This record gives sequence, C-alpha cells and structure tokens, in this order.
Amino acid sequence: MTTAPTQTATDRAFNFSAGPAVLPEPVIQQAKKDLWNVFGSGMGVCELSHRGPEYDRILEECLADTREIGNIPDNYHILFMQGGATLQTSMIPMSFLPAGKTADYFDTGKWSHDAAAEASKFGSMNIAGITRDENYCRLPTEAESNYSNDAAYCFFVSNNTIYGTQYNRFPNTKAPLVCDMSSDIYCRPIEWNKYAMVYASLQKNLGPSGQACIMIRDDFLQTAPDDTLPKLMDYKIAQKKQSRYNTPNTFAIYLMGQVVKWIKSEFGSLAAVEKYNIEKAALLYDMLDNSPFYSAHVNNPDERSTMNIPFKTTAPDLDKKFIAEAAQINLSTLSGHRSIGGMRASMYNAMPIEGARALVEFMKKFESENA
Amino acid sequence: MTTAPTQTATDRAFNFSAGPAVLPEPVIQQAKKDLWNVFGSGMGVCELSHRGPEYDRILEECLADTREIGNIPDNYHILFMQGGATLQTSMIPMSFLPAGKTADYFDTGKWSHDAAAEASKFGSMNIAGITRDENYCRLPTEAESNYSNDAAYCFFVSNNTIYGTQYNRFPNTKAPLVCDMSSDIYCRPIEWNKYAMVYASLQKNLGPSGQACIMIRDDFLQTAPDDTLPKLMDYKIAQKKQSRYNTPNTFAIYLMGQVVKWIKSEFGSLAAVEKYNIEKAALLYDMLDNSPFYSAHVNNPDERSTMNIPFKTTAPDLDKKFIAEAAQINLSTLSGHRSIGGMRASMYNAMPIEGARALVEFMKKFESENA
Repeated sequence: MTTAPTQTATDRAFNFSAGPAVLPEPVIQQAKKDLWNVFGSGMGVCELSHRGPEYDRILEECLADTREIGNIPDNYHILFMQGGATLQTSMIPMSFLPAGKTADYFDTGKWSHDAAAEASKFGSMNIAGITRDENYCRLPTEAESNYSNDAAYCFFVSNNTIYGTQYNRFPNTKAPLVCDMSSDIYCRPIEWNKYAMVYASLQKNLGPSGQACIMIRDDFLQTAPDDTLPKLMDYKIAQKKQSRYNTPNTFAIYLMGQVVKWIKSEFGSLAAVEKYNIEKAALLYDMLDNSPFYSAHVNNPDERSTMNIPFKTTAPDLDKKFIAEAAQINLSTLSGHRSIGGMRASMYNAMPIEGARALVEFMKKFESENA
Repeated sequence: MTTAPTQTATDRAFNFSAGPAVLPEPVIQQAKKDLWNVFGSGMGVCELSHRGPEYDRILEECLADTREIGNIPDNYHILFMQGGATLQTSMIPMSFLPAGKTADYFDTGKWSHDAAAEASKFGSMNIAGITRDENYCRLPTEAESNYSNDAAYCFFVSNNTIYGTQYNRFPNTKAPLVCDMSSDIYCRPIEWNKYAMVYASLQKNLGPSGQACIMIRDDFLQTAPDDTLPKLMDYKIAQKKQSRYNTPNTFAIYLMGQVVKWIKSEFGSLAAVEKYNIEKAALLYDMLDNSPFYSAHVNNPDERSTMNIPFKTTAPDLDKKFIAEAAQINLSTLSGHRSIGGMRASMYNAMPIEGARALVEFMKKFESENA
C-alpha cells in the first residue's frame, strides 16, 4: 500500500478543475472495461437493469465500501438521490423545517448563501454567521455567531470551493448539524456523532456529476413528513426503497463504488487520505506564503482548505498570463471562479502530489520571469 | 448509410433490458476513449468543468444534433434536468396545474397511474381514460374518454414499457398535450405541433439513466410560476440558465450527444429509424401471432409497441425455463416486469435486427422442444 498515487500517463493533464474534477486513473481504466462488458455479463455498466443481479452487486459493494472506509455507524442511512447538492438545499427545509421553528444557516460562500435563500422560501431562516462583507476570506468565529433558540437544525458547508475556507471545528450549537460536504467529503475522517445529516454531490471527491450521496441519522430522517413531498424529494421513500424508487443514476453510483474501492486499496483509511492531502496542500501554501509575488485568498492556517486554494499574482493581467502558460504545460483548469478571479488550484483526493509539485515548479519559474 | 446496424462483438449479449438498456456499440467505443481524454484536452469526459470550453462544445453539439434529427421547431426549448421522468411527474402539476383548473390524465400503465396519483397531491386531477381493469392490454378509445372542460393540460404516456402498448394517435382534446415519451422517444418522427411538452428519461433510447430531456414550447413554459418552486424544479430557471443552473449530469448529456450523432450517421432520419423498428418488431409479432405456444399481451395491431413486447408461453414454469435457457445463449434480460410476469423483449433503437432474429430462432427451437 502506498500513500502516493502517481499520475503517469503522458496523454493526461494535471487537472485542477473545481468539479467535475480529476478521477483516479485506475478508476477510469476499470470504467473503460466495464462500459463494454461488466462482470462478464455481456452488457456494459450503463446498460444494466437497475433491478438485475449485476446492479444489485454494484450498489451493495458501493454501500458496503462507503460505510467501511468512512466508518459510518449503523444508525446512519446512505442514500443516493438525483439533483446534486442543489436539490438538497430545497429538500432539507421542505423536510426538516416545520412551521414555528427556525433553521440556522452559516453564510460562508456562494453555496451556503444560496442554500440560506432557498430555505427562506420554505420557512423561518436565521443567518447564524456571515463573512460576505469580507469576500468570504475567513469563517465566522463562535463569538460572532448568533444561534436561534431551539433551532430545527444548523446548516453549514464544510469546505468552500470558491473561496477556499474549510472548517476544522463544529458550530457550537445543540441543534442537529446538517453539513454540505460536496467539496471535501472523504478528504479526511468524519466525526459522525456530530452530524444529523451529511451530503455531497459526487463530482469532486467521489465520482461524476449528477448524483448526491446522503448520510442521514435514522432518528433525524424519521422527523421528515409523510406522503406530502414530491416523491423524489422524500427521504423516507428513498430509504425505504433503498435509493431505487425510480431508476437511479446507475453509472454515477458504479463510479463512486470504484472510487471508494480505490481509496481503500490506495490509502487504507481516511486518516491516510487526510495526511496526503495536508502534505499536498502544504506544498502550495508554503510557496504562497514565501513569495511576495503570489497571495492566497485565505490567510488563517486553521481555516485554509486542503481541497481548493484560490490565489493571485500581483495583477489581473499576470493572472491571465499565468493561466494560459500553465495550460501550455498541461497544468489545466486553473482559472479562479468568476466571482473572485485569479487562480484556483483544486486538489481533491485524486490529484497526485506530483501535480502539486509541478504547479509549484511552474509558479517559481513564472515568478522569476514576471516579478 | 445503412439502416441495419449490426452487433458483431462476440463478448456482448443481445440485451433486451427495458432500461437502462442497450447502447449502440460505436457509442460505447467512443465513450471509452473519451472517458480517458476527450478532444485531446488531457482530461476525461467526466472530469471536465461544466463551465469550460470542452463541455460547452459537448452541450452545444448535443442540442444542435438533437434539434436537427428530431426536427424540433425553434419555439421549443430543449432542457436537461435531473430526477429522471419521475421528478417530471411532480414538476408538471406543480408548474402547470393552477388552483381552479383540472388536469386530464390517461391511466394506461404503471407510470401514467403513478403520474396521475402524484398530480392529485398538487391539484385537481381527472382520469380521462383508464384500462387498468384489463391489465392495460389496450388503450382507452376516444369514445370511452372523458375530458375536462378547459383542462390545464392533458397528460399521457406514449409507450407503455411494461404492458407494451403504444399510441399511434393523439388524445382528441384542445388542452395542451404533455407526453412522457421515456420509452419511445426518437423511435419515430414526432409531430411537434401536437404537443406543448414532451419529455423522456434517457435510459431507453437516448443514453444512460439519471437524466431527463424536456422539449417544451415557449408559450407553455411561460405559464409556469416565478420564484416559488424549488430551484431545480423550475423550468424557467433551467431555460434561462441553459440547463446549467447547477452542475448537470455531464456524462449523460455527453452520451446522449453520442447517441444522437449515431442516429444521424446510421439512419439519417427518424423516419428511417421508425422503418427499422417496425421491421424488427414485426419479426417478433409474426412469431407470436403464428404460434399456439406463445401469446402477446397486446393484440390490437394499432396499439402494439415497437419498443417493448411482453409475451408468455403456455405456463409460468415454461416462462422461467425460457428466460434461463435464453440467457445461456446470450439473449439477456428477457424477464417480464414483476407486475405482469412472463417475458418482455425490449428492442430500442440500439437493438440490432440480428437480436430480433436470434430471439425468434430461439423461440422456434424452444417451442419445438417444449410445446
């Protein structure tokens, strides 16, 4: 077992996309075979009945491996639902925010901001903390936080994909914690006893786009209403039907299963994944902190993301030049989000440390030529 | 240009699955390459930013080819939304069934039955016709139909995947027609001027599961409410954001694009596709009609599906034996739906006529050994 997966193929770029994002190369190699003929069935993985024995095996293995490597307790269900993380932001208040109660939201970036706005369509929503005025370059402190009494739940996004903050602590509330981990799920171990519900769209650390994975504690799930929501927005139906009320996104679930098997074989534990991600991110943060030419968007080391690292040079024109020249040597998709500009290096689990090293080498060269 | 695609690979079965279903082999071969590195970008098709130039091209080509081969008029939008056909059955009444109006539904099988039940959660629903008591072996006649005055819309399913009926006419109503074509879209030309809205989940004739494609007339779309629905259930947002309000199921849209390119190159028109499908289905219907050993579920030739053909032998035990022996010679996934039993041969566009011939040959042999 190695903790340093390497990307060796010469016809592949180091892909720093924020998502959909780089997948492990052994996973893609397996998927190429299985697209044509999976398990010797004579049928490809996209062509299988979702009620047949081949897909039964795919789903069962994906669930078992996800539970095993994530150390998910038995009282948490693993559900697959379509609509990505965005549909979750509607389903959560529709399901868990009854009349007469308030839900707390931390506004720490675009996705949590949008989630809070969506919740306010369906019930009473309180902003428990916000750093919007500082362009989300840090997280709200506990001293700044303003919790509701007896909140229905407290919602936060563990990692901000655009601005590059990441929680290394938990909101100090007794309300059930609901966390969007779309951009950092399985980048590190999860303390399940802190959460009522965790969810992620797959397209950063777990697979392709178009699928959300939800881990939800049974007692929290049981507080959802019965038979009033649109069928596909009903967590109870998803649980009772084992994520097969309708035809699921079978390819996404297959590919997530392969990614989770890769985590198991390549790292063995989420603690090992975390160690590797910290090592990768440190290469880039060290470069940013030791150069007058580059600056990081987030300065507090306790709040810096290991997944998404936005940074800039000294001028927007140089940023553009940086992105263009990097692309020439196959350091791809380094543009920052349109709301913040500059560059962003997304380095999910599947980004090999060689990608971070290559980026740092290029940064040094670019600085020497342009500073 | 040939109208007889052949399935020649020896490690592939003839896959009669009702969906997810057989894909064209050239499409799978292309997908295997593009999973690794698409357009020479160094990135695989599941790893592309949905805002990047490679995905822009994939989406634009898919839309253009879908519009061209389908002869879709300019006043119809093509939208991609997650949640498959099932979420559409919630979204349609939530969007187009205002208080004080009634929607007409034809109950002609499981999916239309469930759609009608879902609509009744959100507004006034009228069953305009039903053949449930006859185990859906035929469609309601116009004489039996009971339309509402000034209905908000009239909903029907063009092809019943489970029971094997298919409409070759249109409900005779002035209400806007909304049609679920999940299991027969692009099996034949579509008379667009008859419909306000058509939709399909992709996993039968257009690609993998986990994605719906919606063709909707602009004036009908504009009657949807503003800003009150969950964001991902809002057709107007999907249209304004060109199916990219959130991260779409990029792989499904890519694969649909490849399937539509295949239809263009292999058939050249939906009229040619229809001719091929009629020829394929006739092989099986002729066999069923000329054997005392087999019987079809649907007898009216005007209502027989070219896509899904449920049939039985003379006894349930023989049906089981048939399915098992067929699987031995790579005629796969021939089990009937659990609600009807027996066998079902689904023969979507991508099923080569050689598959139908191989099935008929096996049926003759099985009859001679077991009649």
